[in-house]
Amino acid sequence: MYFYKEDLINPIIPDEPDPAAAKVLQEVLGGRFGEMRTMMQFFFQSSNFRGPAKEFRDLIRGIFLEEISHVELVQSTINQLLNGSGEPGVGNQGTTGAPLEEATAHSNPHHFIMGAQASLPVDAAGLPWQGSYVYSHGNLITDLLDNLVLESTGVLQKTRIYEMSSNKAFRETLAFLIVRDNAHQNAYAKALEKLGVNWAKIFPVPNYDINKYPECRKYVEMGYNNVLFNFRLDETRMAEIFQGESPSRSSGQLSVVGPPQGAPVPVLPEMPNEHSPGLSDLNE
Amino acid sequence: MYFYKEDLINPIIPDEPDPAAAKVLQEVLGGRFGEMRTMMQFFFQSSNFRGPAKEFRDLIRGIFLEEISHVELVQSTINQLLNGSGEPGVGNQGTTGAPLEEATAHSNPHHFIMGAQASLPVDAAGLPWQGSYVYSHGNLITDLLDNLVLESTGVLQKTRIYEMSSNKAFRETLAFLIVRDNAHQNAYAKALEKLGVNWAKIFPVPNYDINKYPECRKYVEMGYNNVLFNFRLDETRMAEIFQGESPSRSSGQLSVVGPPQGAPVPVLPEMPNEHSPGLSDLNE
Amino acid sequence: MYFYKEDLINPIIPDEPDPAAAKVLQEVLGGRFGEMRTMMQFFFQSSNFRGPAKEFRDLIRGIFLEEISHVELVQSTINQLLNGSGEPGVGNQGTTGAPLEEATAHSNPHHFIMGAQASLPVDAAGLPWQGSYVYSHGNLITDLLDNLVLESTGVLQKTRIYEMSSNKAFRETLAFLIVRDNAHQNAYAKALEKLGVNWAKIFPVPNYDINKYPECRKYVEMGYNNVLFNFRLDETRMAEIFQGESPSRSSGQLSVVGPPQGAPVPVLPEMPNEHSPGLSDLNE
Amino acid sequence: MYFYKEDLINPIIPDEPDPAAAKVLQEVLGGRFGEMRTMMQFFFQSSNFRGPAKEFRDLIRGIFLEEISHVELVQSTINQLLNGSGEPGVGNQGTTGAPLEEATAHSNPHHFIMGAQASLPVDAAGLPWQGSYVYSHGNLITDLLDNLVLESTGVLQKTRIYEMSSNKAFRETLAFLIVRDNAHQNAYAKALEKLGVNWAKIFPVPNYDINKYPECRKYVEMGYNNVLFNFRLDETRMAEIFQGESPSRSSGQLSVVGPPQGAPVPVLPEMPNEHSPGLSDLNE
Amino acid sequence: MYFYKEDLINPIIPDEPDPAAAKVLQEVLGGRFGEMRTMMQFFFQSSNFRGPAKEFRDLIRGIFLEEISHVELVQSTINQLLNGSGEPGVGNQGTTGAPLEEATAHSNPHHFIMGAQASLPVDAAGLPWQGSYVYSHGNLITDLLDNLVLESTGVLQKTRIYEMSSNKAFRETLAFLIVRDNAHQNAYAKALEKLGVNWAKIFPVPNYDINKYPECRKYVEMGYNNVLFNFRLDETRMAEIFQGESPSRSSGQLSVVGPPQGAPVPVLPEMPNEHSPGLSDLNE
Amino acid sequence: MYFYKEDLINPIIPDEPDPAAAKVLQEVLGGRFGEMRTMMQFFFQSSNFRGPAKEFRDLIRGIFLEEISHVELVQSTINQLLNGSGEPGVGNQGTTGAPLEEATAHSNPHHFIMGAQASLPVDAAGLPWQGSYVYSHGNLITDLLDNLVLESTGVLQKTRIYEMSSNKAFRETLAFLIVRDNAHQNAYAKALEKLGVNWAKIFPVPNYDINKYPECRKYVEMGYNNVLFNFRLDETRMAEIFQGESPSRSSGQLSVVGPPQGAPVPVLPEMPNEHSPGLSDLNE
Repeated sequence: MYFYKEDLINPIIPDEPDPAAAKVLQEVLGGRFGEMRTMMQFFFQSSNFRGPAKEFRDLIRGIFLEEISHVELVQSTINQLLNGSGEPGVGNQGTTGAPLEEATAHSNPHHFIMGAQASLPVDAAGLPWQGSYVYSHGNLITDLLDNLVLESTGVLQKTRIYEMSSNKAFRETLAFLIVRDNAHQNAYAKALEKLGVNWAKIFPVPNYDINKYPECRKYVEMGYNNVLFNFRLDETRMAEIFQGESPSRSSGQLSVVGPPQGAPVPVLPEMPNEHSPGLSDLNE
Repeated sequence: MYFYKEDLINPIIPDEPDPAAAKVLQEVLGGRFGEMRTMMQFFFQSSNFRGPAKEFRDLIRGIFLEEISHVELVQSTINQLLNGSGEPGVGNQGTTGAPLEEATAHSNPHHFIMGAQASLPVDAAGLPWQGSYVYSHGNLITDLLDNLVLESTGVLQKTRIYEMSSNKAFRETLAFLIVRDNAHQNAYAKALEKLGVNWAKIFPVPNYDINKYPECRKYVEMGYNNVLFNFRLDETRMAEIFQGESPSRSSGQLSVVGPPQGAPVPVLPEMPNEHSPGLSDLNE
Repeated sequence: MYFYKEDLINPIIPDEPDPAAAKVLQEVLGGRFGEMRTMMQFFFQSSNFRGPAKEFRDLIRGIFLEEISHVELVQSTINQLLNGSGEPGVGNQGTTGAPLEEATAHSNPHHFIMGAQASLPVDAAGLPWQGSYVYSHGNLITDLLDNLVLESTGVLQKTRIYEMSSNKAFRETLAFLIVRDNAHQNAYAKALEKLGVNWAKIFPVPNYDINKYPECRKYVEMGYNNVLFNFRLDETRMAEIFQGESPSRSSGQLSVVGPPQGAPVPVLPEMPNEHSPGLSDLNE
Repeated sequence: MYFYKEDLINPIIPDEPDPAAAKVLQEVLGGRFGEMRTMMQFFFQSSNFRGPAKEFRDLIRGIFLEEISHVELVQSTINQLLNGSGEPGVGNQGTTGAPLEEATAHSNPHHFIMGAQASLPVDAAGLPWQGSYVYSHGNLITDLLDNLVLESTGVLQKTRIYEMSSNKAFRETLAFLIVRDNAHQNAYAKALEKLGVNWAKIFPVPNYDINKYPECRKYVEMGYNNVLFNFRLDETRMAEIFQGESPSRSSGQLSVVGPPQGAPVPVLPEMPNEHSPGLSDLNE
Repeated sequence: MYFYKEDLINPIIPDEPDPAAAKVLQEVLGGRFGEMRTMMQFFFQSSNFRGPAKEFRDLIRGIFLEEISHVELVQSTINQLLNGSGEPGVGNQGTTGAPLEEATAHSNPHHFIMGAQASLPVDAAGLPWQGSYVYSHGNLITDLLDNLVLESTGVLQKTRIYEMSSNKAFRETLAFLIVRDNAHQNAYAKALEKLGVNWAKIFPVPNYDINKYPECRKYVEMGYNNVLFNFRLDETRMAEIFQGESPSRSSGQLSVVGPPQGAPVPVLPEMPNEHSPGLSDLNE
Repeated sequence: MYFYKEDLINPIIPDEPDPAAAKVLQEVLGGRFGEMRTMMQFFFQSSNFRGPAKEFRDLIRGIFLEEISHVELVQSTINQLLNGSGEPGVGNQGTTGAPLEEATAHSNPHHFIMGAQASLPVDAAGLPWQGSYVYSHGNLITDLLDNLVLESTGVLQKTRIYEMSSNKAFRETLAFLIVRDNAHQNAYAKALEKLGVNWAKIFPVPNYDINKYPECRKYVEMGYNNVLFNFRLDETRMAEIFQGESPSRSSGQLSVVGPPQGAPVPVLPEMPNEHSPGLSDLNE
């Protein structure tokens, strides 16, 4: 059973609205290698796990639990990037003067139609997330290799998306997730190391220069690339795997720690132009 | 942030393998009105909620939390229905004598190919779940009406699926979920009642005869149709809505209670024929 | 604007339930070359038509109008094939004795889950119809060639599906539609003949032997392969094209005639097992 | 059987080309809650209707008939918005000077590739319409509730899209459809009122201020929010439901009336740049 | 079995980066009527061919072989259009100054996220290619007619896309492919001519004016509209069909010739900003 | 440019028709990890390759070339399994006596409708292949890891499918492909070994017992698990990587060799019942 404390896993930094950034950040939410994929893939692999080697199941489930809060963080960051994007002077300077003309320019028009300037289960091209993205092979080695590719592609795509806007809310959330993907990359690499593989110097993949993504630095200094957060209310055996020297070139000792401090879930303003939530309409 | 205690929300009753039942039970997991839909729809609506009426957000989020464990329950029930289905004498009596010939008969062949006889994010016809199933309209009344339809269709489809096999594991899980869908139907109907609607006698929809689904009776007797489980580790305001007389013809007082007792998550047996988990192969 | 008289375009012959036949007949409704495709393709081509050659637009629109009633005919035939298919002794003799166990055998399970044993906008494999099936190229010659292929594939697939069951309701509807597809093939072939093409002996495609599909004979004898029905309440110029000698080897004069006599739309029985329509539940 | 008179259900107001507006108006045609959805959903529900309560079937079918002409109206409005959009000085001022460079800017490029600047069965993000959007549950109460959500979402999305351009053709068509969606909302709300529900003040949803959408006013003054048009050539029983006081806060008496006056279907100009229709090419 | 010589089938002309052109050129690669469709359709038709009339199978297979190199040519042209598109002064002059802000403007963002500024199996709207595009009817006449429509639509769409940018790399590749589509149109028209059809003056479709697409002229002067290239290492009988007078108004004799001279496959530069290929990272 | 010699890469063993086996073998053709995926993924990765390390590009391209002939082999095997499946006494013993009633039982009905008992670009559940299956990340390490997972899943799924029928044509083709997937697994594992990884004992994945799949033995004895076939007509540098000791527990030296001997492409019989090819109809 699943429990909740109303906190975001990381704070969202305030900045201006940026609907074009919101459009591409959708890849991190609903893309083929986004957070919905990791969340659901690790959920299915946990539930479908066979055999007595529970330390592996606990590892996969532990990362699944964190991914739920990653989904929530990206939803909330997209919402903040959209907030106020229909205001005069923001984004597209259209020719017709209509309040939401922005939606026809560099934005995803569904952000303004389907909901009231809010996150969607789609990718940067507007394609809906699909169940066929999820893979639960049943064979543990194949699952671990697949998860390792998944986390690597996570970093790869996030570093590319990072360069699409200098908006601070956008970059901070990406930076936090890049470092956490490194930690999860370490987790799956370490699990395969337990089975005998020696990764030499290939990880992290991609082998990015942290100076290019300065927001990442503080998370590395906090050790976030070498820890797994423990969201279990009962026992977990994931530390049997996630311990010892990091399998990546970036040195350090792996350890399982408690959940991060968290940050308040934002209260989104009403948006009468979009009839949201529409209760004041009711009372008129 | 999300926390976990390794318990199923309801026990799975042991019975024989039944891969044809597993095929149709997929509708309840990955169908257009299945548990993945309700889970993700309420997740997006919670995160995208606008305005200060937090009692509604807490209501939607509270039901979302339960839906995560519904997904896990259905995954686990499908897995039990599949376990052993490639054994001699189970299911299809094929003509070629191949061990997994069952997969070509009344089963979903992907249950035997994609994973090792395990649940998938697809529906009863084998179609992958899609992000476009999720709806987060932004307008609260529309969201509540949509959720009410969703829970009604949930009951409707589960009562129909119930009649497709007399397998006990299959029927027990369906019965539990039917009664919980009734509770969630009550929650959304009550929220609209707060806004002025009088439902008269139309709920529950469909207005099923409980004698046709005898496994449901004990859950009704336990009051499961009139309670919401509270999975929050902090405060929630959902009881401001979910209280008082039930909006359905089935009388009773609504109340918010603690989580159910739960049941152990099963340990699935190894399945060497499917190379799962494949660690023993490694050590040969 | 569109008007309606509650008549099927052709009678449905009574016969036993046959859910396996219903499953494959879905191809004719929601398949890539089924009646929903022809209906929507000709609708878009009519509305998107450019230029003053209205006789071509009227031809395409005239066939579109008939296709709406083809969709209704196939929906109704599927419904009749499904009616009673959950009764004892019909279809699958399952091992568990559940009333709708049929749904797990040779049927499309969605016929029993999504609706109450009723037609769906899907194909024989259960895949939902897609807007990308519709083609409206804008170039008239390309559109006419594409429509000609579409009608040819219509005949081709229907003759193949015809051989999948000897059910009379199933075969009669197919036979009527095969002959009407021939008429529409003639229409598009004739339109291209107007532009100079000489088809020699290649039509009809496929060049089927009518003795293999005996139900077709009476429709040919009624001249249904050489007429277009006129469903316009105002003037149409389609007879400027659809006249003179048939472009097919099957000789005959083409002509535009009034609508066929029609047949009553069946009243489907209630199905309490499926909670349909569920009003009697309400009054209990 | 279906009949046709070549008239649009409402006139299209002339204005400048606006391909960006055409892109977002596609949501109203091929979106999840657009006119193709309502048309096909009510078509399937009519054909699949069970039981003797024909007044409900007639109501759903009556609305279906109007939706066909809504599809035609939106197709035609999109076509007018696209006409001339490749001309110098329209839309995108590209850097390469190519005649159709507009297609690479704020437009849907498929409007210029798939057809000759013409409507498509897709939504505002370019996603093809899908059969899985259609819902025909078989249970009448669930169908009515679902249709009520559908019409509410129709209004909600159209009011949002309205704010994306001030183009007159665009806004006039949207305004007409908003008021007609209100009428259909009233129809389904009234049908549920017959079954006992009291809606209090929640309808219309959303409870929009008509002064924000001034083009709507004349349609309300014509009473279009409180009438159903009768497109039947035979008897219909829908007035047994659609009569009496409106179920919405906007007061008024419901009534069934004859079809509206209609407006000529436009003749679209040839577009040689797009090889449409291409007959003049043939005669060169 | 398939063999390869590392040569493009036609040279790519150097020009500036043009990511908006790359976006629309994707239609020619992964669109419903693009080169992946023709390649896979003719592949399936070749392998599924029935009966002894091998000259037809050899014709279809011969064109299939050329289509593989068309896919490679379009992939390579897209890659050249993307190369350098993230550089200062190229494309979108964004407001945030981020290096890849271009991706949020007129480009397909997936070109910058999924790969390192590289071609994708999608169309101009970003929709993934689908197996359902491929048609292999089994009936030879239907297959030939379908292929003829396919090649006609190929020309039609390429002439429209041609007008979306004046970039030289873009237009040269389109011009080559337009003329080759004409040759393939001739091949399928001729095959049907063998079966008796007289096409009169309708081909080529569309009947474009070569002066509008000046890059096409040299390919016509080289006779590329009237030849099939022979990529077989053994015997082929396709010349039994592809010979004699062209079936199109553009006169000329059809003939089978050897492969064209070819052009070197470009070596794409490294792109460190996109972590591609990322080996230098490894050695740092 | 691509060249062809009309030979299958491996012979197909004759055996009885087995349409249920054909249905599941579609996974190997059009499934998420099937031969169409490997073919197209390696095609895109080859064309999109960046940087001077051509030995890697040549390796990927070399495997791509073989995959084209794998697609052809699986198409041909499916066709043989379908041939004759509509004959009396084969497969389903239906109740209606219709010739193709088999299509409604354990078969994929599209095998009998879309083409004339022929292969399709779909998977075992009938889902069309999708472009989104293809991954070309741009980062070489990520691409190699992804390809390694792909080949591992290829073996995993084929060993599972192998157990679904004892048909000899079915099992022989699977066995050949399993061993070739092992070779390709070795290729990608070796490429990563060049970059420093030590795989210890984890490969091959899954670590199957060859005695369970006896048809594999002769291919292993022929050394097919340790060779790459060279289909280049010019120079290739892939042997710079594919040489030395195998990276798998199964010992042996890797080497690049010439193409295999090949086997005649079968001539499929006419199928008049399916109107294929339909030329004899024409001459009647």
